[in-house]
Amino acid sequence: MTSIAKHTQIEQDLRTKIQDGTYPPQTLIPREVDLMATYQVSRPTVRQAIQTLVEQGLLEKRKRRGTMVKQAKIVQAFTQVIEGYDAEMADKGLQPQTKVLLFKTEPATAEVASKLQLSVTAVVYKLVRLRYANGQPVVLLTSYLPTDGLDLATVDFTTVSLYDTLTQQQAAVERVRRRLDVLKADETTADLLNVAVDEPLFYFHTQGLTAQGTPVEYSIAKYRGDLNYFMMDLQR
Amino acid sequence: MTSIAKHTQIEQDLRTKIQDGTYPPQTLIPREVDLMATYQVSRPTVRQAIQTLVEQGLLEKRKRRGTMVKQAKIVQAFTQVIEGYDAEMADKGLQPQTKVLLFKTEPATAEVASKLQLSVTAVVYKLVRLRYANGQPVVLLTSYLPTDGLDLATVDFTTVSLYDTLTQQQAAVERVRRRLDVLKADETTADLLNVAVDEPLFYFHTQGLTAQGTPVEYSIAKYRGDLNYFMMDLQR
Repeated sequence: MTSIAKHTQIEQDLRTKIQDGTYPPQTLIPREVDLMATYQVSRPTVRQAIQTLVEQGLLEKRKRRGTMVKQAKIVQAFTQVIEGYDAEMADKGLQPQTKVLLFKTEPATAEVASKLQLSVTAVVYKLVRLRYANGQPVVLLTSYLPTDGLDLATVDFTTVSLYDTLTQQQAAVERVRRRLDVLKADETTADLLNVAVDEPLFYFHTQGLTAQGTPVEYSIAKYRGDLNYFMMDLQR
Repeated sequence: MTSIAKHTQIEQDLRTKIQDGTYPPQTLIPREVDLMATYQVSRPTVRQAIQTLVEQGLLEKRKRRGTMVKQAKIVQAFTQVIEGYDAEMADKGLQPQTKVLLFKTEPATAEVASKLQLSVTAVVYKLVRLRYANGQPVVLLTSYLPTDGLDLATVDFTTVSLYDTLTQQQAAVERVRRRLDVLKADETTADLLNVAVDEPLFYFHTQGLTAQGTPVEYSIAKYRGDLNYFMMDLQR
């Protein structure tokens, strides 16, 4: 067996143990000296295997502590984003949970009135939710909805989906127009999402439209950058 | 005219002047005291109009300097990403420019070999380009391509599009599979893109496939977060 084959073999064995949970996320893998003994190889061979997994985002070096298994990210498919959050998470085998941080009516800001095509004197529902997957906060979501034609006052959004509710009230979202920016977490957002201040976030602004083209939802979502990535397939 | 109507009117007038170039990007708008005189209103009314435009991302407060017009971001439509960069920028009325930072052949890394479905001993082209719009760096793009079946050695990628070249060499990209993460700019990337270290970037990994499903391109793109945003329309 050549030296190249050895480090590749170790790399593959470590990857298998990360993926099958032998080495769970946020825990340290064995020390270099232990891996050298286990695989009967030299330190450079172990280091090369680890370095490849670090470059591939599976492992992370921690100063003075060792090498840690990184938290796997959640794939968010752009083609599925109109599906409800709970359904999406369940598809991925993750346990969803929603906390309602705020639910009230308030006068629309100029931005919200414009996106919902309401007059500047309109009153809107404001719903702020923090959504979890397997106990970790994933996305902070602020949704604005017209009060005219909707009755959301008695809905428990901890357990009920906003999109299901809109469908029941003859205001199903059939099309969304979404803008994506990046954003640094401010102190409040960082606290809620359990990340450090200034960590990069995905920052979505979404206008949800009915089949008739009437806007019924304007949402602002902040997704943790360390826990999510988005996949898209495009044809020429 | 009520006070609400006044600040909305000032807000609309300022927005028009930003959009028609009366107040160009990166310049200061008149001082509050001058706007008070121009519009014959009180300071709180001027401040309310400015605050709305700050929230909408058109203006930015600068300490001790005044209120600056923000650089407008470039809309990147997800539906158009297979179009070449120059064509996309021209559509938007922006002057494109490309600098080739590196072009060479090198042994494929494990990641590149896997994405291009090559053996680990394969040699690939590596092309690093920095792309500009109206003189500002917008995206840093590293592309890997198979050397087998492609002859890129004589192509001047300063003026010629990679996708046009692939089409000419019977390896047209017809479908892309793209992953989007967020990333903090490291020192080198920050220098090249002319942003501060740790500024958030869009971070794309793209696999380009021919009509037959053969991967012919693997690219890593870092888009400035302050200069770009992405729009997408989704149907249920």
